Amino acid sequence: MSLAPAVGLEPSGVTAAQGFRAAVASADVRGEGGVRPDLAILTTELPAAAAGVFTQNRVKAAPVVVSQLHLKRGVARAVVINSGNANACTGSQGLADALRMVQATADVADCDPGEVLVASTGVIGRQLPIDRIRAAIAEAGGRLDPAHGRLAAEAIMTTDTRPKEAVEQFVVAGVTHTVGGMAKGAGMIHPDMATLLAFATTDARIAPDLLAELLRSAVRTSFNTISIDGDTSTNDCCLVLANGAAGGPELVRGSAAAAGFAQALDRVLQDLAGQIVADGEGVTKTFAVTISGAADQQQATLAARTVTTSPLVKTAIHGGDPNWGRILMAVGRSGADLALDRCRLRLAGFELFALGRPTAVDLQQVSAALSQPTIAIEIDLGVGEAEATALGCDLTSEYVRINGEYST
Amino acid sequence: MSLAPAVGLEPSGVTAAQGFRAAVASADVRGEGGVRPDLAILTTELPAAAAGVFTQNRVKAAPVVVSQLHLKRGVARAVVINSGNANACTGSQGLADALRMVQATADVADCDPGEVLVASTGVIGRQLPIDRIRAAIAEAGGRLDPAHGRLAAEAIMTTDTRPKEAVEQFVVAGVTHTVGGMAKGAGMIHPDMATLLAFATTDARIAPDLLAELLRSAVRTSFNTISIDGDTSTNDCCLVLANGAAGGPELVRGSAAAAGFAQALDRVLQDLAGQIVADGEGVTKTFAVTISGAADQQQATLAARTVTTSPLVKTAIHGGDPNWGRILMAVGRSGADLALDRCRLRLAGFELFALGRPTAVDLQQVSAALSQPTIAIEIDLGVGEAEATALGCDLTSEYVRINGEYST
Repeated sequence: MSLAPAVGLEPSGVTAAQGFRAAVASADVRGEGGVRPDLAILTTELPAAAAGVFTQNRVKAAPVVVSQLHLKRGVARAVVINSGNANACTGSQGLADALRMVQATADVADCDPGEVLVASTGVIGRQLPIDRIRAAIAEAGGRLDPAHGRLAAEAIMTTDTRPKEAVEQFVVAGVTHTVGGMAKGAGMIHPDMATLLAFATTDARIAPDLLAELLRSAVRTSFNTISIDGDTSTNDCCLVLANGAAGGPELVRGSAAAAGFAQALDRVLQDLAGQIVADGEGVTKTFAVTISGAADQQQATLAARTVTTSPLVKTAIHGGDPNWGRILMAVGRSGADLALDRCRLRLAGFELFALGRPTAVDLQQVSAALSQPTIAIEIDLGVGEAEATALGCDLTSEYVRINGEYST
Repeated sequence: MSLAPAVGLEPSGVTAAQGFRAAVASADVRGEGGVRPDLAILTTELPAAAAGVFTQNRVKAAPVVVSQLHLKRGVARAVVINSGNANACTGSQGLADALRMVQATADVADCDPGEVLVASTGVIGRQLPIDRIRAAIAEAGGRLDPAHGRLAAEAIMTTDTRPKEAVEQFVVAGVTHTVGGMAKGAGMIHPDMATLLAFATTDARIAPDLLAELLRSAVRTSFNTISIDGDTSTNDCCLVLANGAAGGPELVRGSAAAAGFAQALDRVLQDLAGQIVADGEGVTKTFAVTISGAADQQQATLAARTVTTSPLVKTAIHGGDPNWGRILMAVGRSGADLALDRCRLRLAGFELFALGRPTAVDLQQVSAALSQPTIAIEIDLGVGEAEATALGCDLTSEYVRINGEYST
């Protein structure tokens, strides 16, 4: 396949910040004769401070193990990503293949292999077609371009129906800095699982430990607040690279400049997280669950996330059914402390439960309001001051079809 | 509605043991002019030792609160149950109504209200039609009969497609004793949630504290191993009454006789639990997850139950897709300790993953084996000796339809 020329493309997503280039190629990872690009590489001209957060799943894919190891030095020059195969549960051969991807990328980026990060997404339990992948890396290495961020966002897609990119800017000492990112998620090509990969870049200059700290914080309020089906991938990974190419001063902990970067990073990741939920498998509606009055932050988050993963809440939202009892059921089973006689519940703006009993709202009106594509669910637990928000989506027959109605 | 005459009916389910009678009536709990019996009462001629286990949901329905209180004395004479309304999230009026149900039942059973247990199942957040319910209790009180166990099992159904009963017998000192039970679950009438109610009776003589201990143990290996959709009801309740009517000696802790009763109770509850999963909303297949090699019992159970609640595993089972990577993903996210290089995974009898890597099994064969209505999933975590089994069911478009595709 000959790639679309870069003509007309602008730097976007992971190449929006200065000094980053991307390229894609087709490795036919699935071995089905596909020509769609399924391999992307991202490089930085200057060595970048790097940080990552990874799946909490005890079954970690080989690329996760390798990237975690390489991130210990806090600096990166390149990232290589393939879709179509997760390289998970593949034993020592999987590990060797992840390292071969790293070496091939180090060759084209002219850097130490320890400065290359690697990510994979797709089916679990199959070995990579490593020769085709190495050839694709070499091919991509010849056409690295700041205009190819969008192509990279497309190459990492699986069942995503659209690429996901976001960009924010902030100014430090008169110098404009950019934070850009791309993500894929809800993805699945037969057979697969909801794998989330996210990559952010910035031309700000920042030390690796501060970068790691701000990334953890940003992930907490973005990716860790969303749920599509409650299943956690073996390959989840969010990486950030900061190369300092904008020429501004180094961002120091506690400064207004660092706060400006943190806010831009938060926004980019929240934007990408929202795009992932909206493009979730079979999704027709999303809903935001806001818990207030919780005993502490952990309990607020627990309650909010439990509501977003409840199949009975998700199907009720899908059907436009103002069945608010299911929401209280989910809050109750989360284990968060609550005082039922001080609880309040609002659904799509209507207060349906207050001070321990149902209100007199006309449920027909609520039902009509539930036809909106985005629904607000607000619950006050009545025991404290902590708050949290989580983002979920409906459960549809289309989700079942995508994930069940085929055979290998 | 005139009830079917008792002629031709035999004692079964909760009236299989000696000295128990049941009766049903229609209270039109849903207020839709229904004539199907939706109220059941169960009485015992002799005072019965009683024990119960209840939902862990922090939002507890009024009948749960009342039954927990009444069980403190360890003795019961009657149980009253309605379907169609859960009497949950109904504030002080709900509590008063649960007590009114208790009083009306005490009147017909001629006992102290403190000896009456109460259970409700159905929609959350609506007040009971207490006058119709009281009239139905009075009506049912006039036709208590040992032959009406089956009618009671039918009256407590919601979206269940069939009544669930089980009976076991055991012999102590030459005296045959019976343990019988009934349950409902996966139930929903618009709008509702998966509420599980189970009731067991026995004509054995046993002290309340030993009965409670054996009930907790039996529930752990029966109802607490099943999952239909991962949501825990506000009304879950499992009660057992032992009236001693068989005339055998009192069962004492640690005796062979107590072990005989415990085994019979285990079997009755496991039988009912299996019936509930098989009749789950939209279910076409069930699967048993057996975890071995776990570090301890708690981790074995955690891993097994996480697999049964994974939407990606449930949809793969539905589609007959041998996508075993999803099973390892679910085990991994459960948080149970595992040694991936010593893990083994068998699906429908085929070993697909062993010692850290995929095996060479032909997936077409596995796919064919997955068309069976009951599937075995076996995973050895490779770290210890503990084992656990959990029972799950597939996730289907029909589940989504039942729970979503209507509006109030």
